[in-house]
Amino acid sequence: MTRMIIAGAQLGPIQKADSREAVVARMIDLMNMAADKGAGLIVYPELALTTFFPRWYMPDWNEVDTWFEREMPNGATMPLFERARELGMAMTFGYAELTPEGRRFNTSILTNRKAEIVGKYRKVHLPGHDEYDTERAFQHLEKRYFEPGDLGFNVWRNEGAIMGMAICNDRRWPETYRCLGLQGVELVTIGYNTPAVNSQMNAEGLEKRLFHSDLSLQSGAYQNATYVVGVAKAGLEDGHPLIGGSIIVDPDGFVLARAETEEDELIWADCDFDKCAFGKTTIFDFARHRRVEHYGRITSQTGAIVEV
Amino acid sequence: MTRMIIAGAQLGPIQKADSREAVVARMIDLMNMAADKGAGLIVYPELALTTFFPRWYMPDWNEVDTWFEREMPNGATMPLFERARELGMAMTFGYAELTPEGRRFNTSILTNRKAEIVGKYRKVHLPGHDEYDTERAFQHLEKRYFEPGDLGFNVWRNEGAIMGMAICNDRRWPETYRCLGLQGVELVTIGYNTPAVNSQMNAEGLEKRLFHSDLSLQSGAYQNATYVVGVAKAGLEDGHPLIGGSIIVDPDGFVLARAETEEDELIWADCDFDKCAFGKTTIFDFARHRRVEHYGRITSQTGAIVEV
Repeated sequence: MTRMIIAGAQLGPIQKADSREAVVARMIDLMNMAADKGAGLIVYPELALTTFFPRWYMPDWNEVDTWFEREMPNGATMPLFERARELGMAMTFGYAELTPEGRRFNTSILTNRKAEIVGKYRKVHLPGHDEYDTERAFQHLEKRYFEPGDLGFNVWRNEGAIMGMAICNDRRWPETYRCLGLQGVELVTIGYNTPAVNSQMNAEGLEKRLFHSDLSLQSGAYQNATYVVGVAKAGLEDGHPLIGGSIIVDPDGFVLARAETEEDELIWADCDFDKCAFGKTTIFDFARHRRVEHYGRITSQTGAIVEV
Repeated sequence: MTRMIIAGAQLGPIQKADSREAVVARMIDLMNMAADKGAGLIVYPELALTTFFPRWYMPDWNEVDTWFEREMPNGATMPLFERARELGMAMTFGYAELTPEGRRFNTSILTNRKAEIVGKYRKVHLPGHDEYDTERAFQHLEKRYFEPGDLGFNVWRNEGAIMGMAICNDRRWPETYRCLGLQGVELVTIGYNTPAVNSQMNAEGLEKRLFHSDLSLQSGAYQNATYVVGVAKAGLEDGHPLIGGSIIVDPDGFVLARAETEEDELIWADCDFDKCAFGKTTIFDFARHRRVEHYGRITSQTGAIVEV
């Protein structure tokens, strides 16, 4: 039996002027709270160390690179790794990764209880656009600042459970969960920064945005019989609002814990990974029920093709 | 602009002793009600003409075949087709199909406003089992009585909108909606017969069963920016309870109409198919955002493979 208290560490807003060191201090505060709850794993948001910089158009790539990390851990994040090691707590968080070859990815890492990095994921589904868009209320330049992830969807057996990662917009794509589900995933961790306003439809309010986040996380959990933890960076970053709504979802798709604020806030749930087995061996026993001979379009075709 | 009032015609229970003619009379009553609402299309459940016979183990295949239709329309259903033609209403319903070659499928058909059959679908994701199961509270022998559908997931432009069909358990599989979404679907019609009790987990109550149905229909709609209509056969069939919960879902995943009873009940909604365009051209613009190079497992691998 593998059972673990999982914590979701929602972060409130990070302003452009805030240093990584200040953010890491906040992350350590949340980690200490998680330790008090007995957590074995703590999940932080996407791009946890900085403001959500893809909302800003920066023509100067030297300026862009100030938002990226060249190694992990590094000087700013070492205290987080050290505290995790002291507490014996696994963790996952997101950051902007600049590789030695000069490639840029929206990345997350997973550590074990010794604070050793056991897994890395690079965001596959980049939303937004790659050039300045005069039509938008604000920019969402992920396609400019990042390459699509090149590592695919992988799982790791970490501290007894089969874990996979995804990032933000990945959570809206059922392919994400299915690729992990086909590897037996029991816990999917997903950090996000989601604007509270649709830059292309101002009338779409916060309530609808939260509904879509929940719907995606809950259906992904149910349809793959896995726990899913979605963790937000939330609140008003330099005037730009981000949704909160961090949740922990069980393998039946039910919400076990939900953040109530748009600030730094810890949520947690006692997760019994054996509970994944029922769905995986009955209604979602893939080997018995899936019919891949009819799924061809999913991999042979990228965009919609209307032929009727 | 294509706009149409879509009706969902939930059917209450059909007992083993009920004749097809009696059921067709109920279907016509619902069709007349739909005409009063101005409906252009009416959606009936899976296996709409008979009780949900896969709950019964029948060793005698001659008895099995009494539940199947050898042609469509046939004598029993002709009055339904005639009334649809008079009213100028398109329709879709499910039935057990026995082909001239002796093959058996769980099938649905789609007609246009002239009551001409324009599309046929055969259920791909058959739930349940193929031999008598002593461990179950009741039987679910779809894998015994039907072959998996051999036609795949197709769409038809019918009365101005791009329509696709799925049946019952298909609705829990995101592959279903995605295969249709990749063909630009604007309306997915899904009839179902879902036991109110999980034959393998008695404690799973009605509320959870309805939640899972909603979750699947709503996420499928949202993630493919399509209307989805899910229509139940509901209530107590010879002592066996079926969930109701028929709903019409908009391309944002919101429920527009919901059945409140477990009886014959009509729901309807005014569907503006142009509303599918926003999602299909922004967040779910597949051509811009999907990354098929990382989806390989979805089609290359049927069952889960745990390698960690």
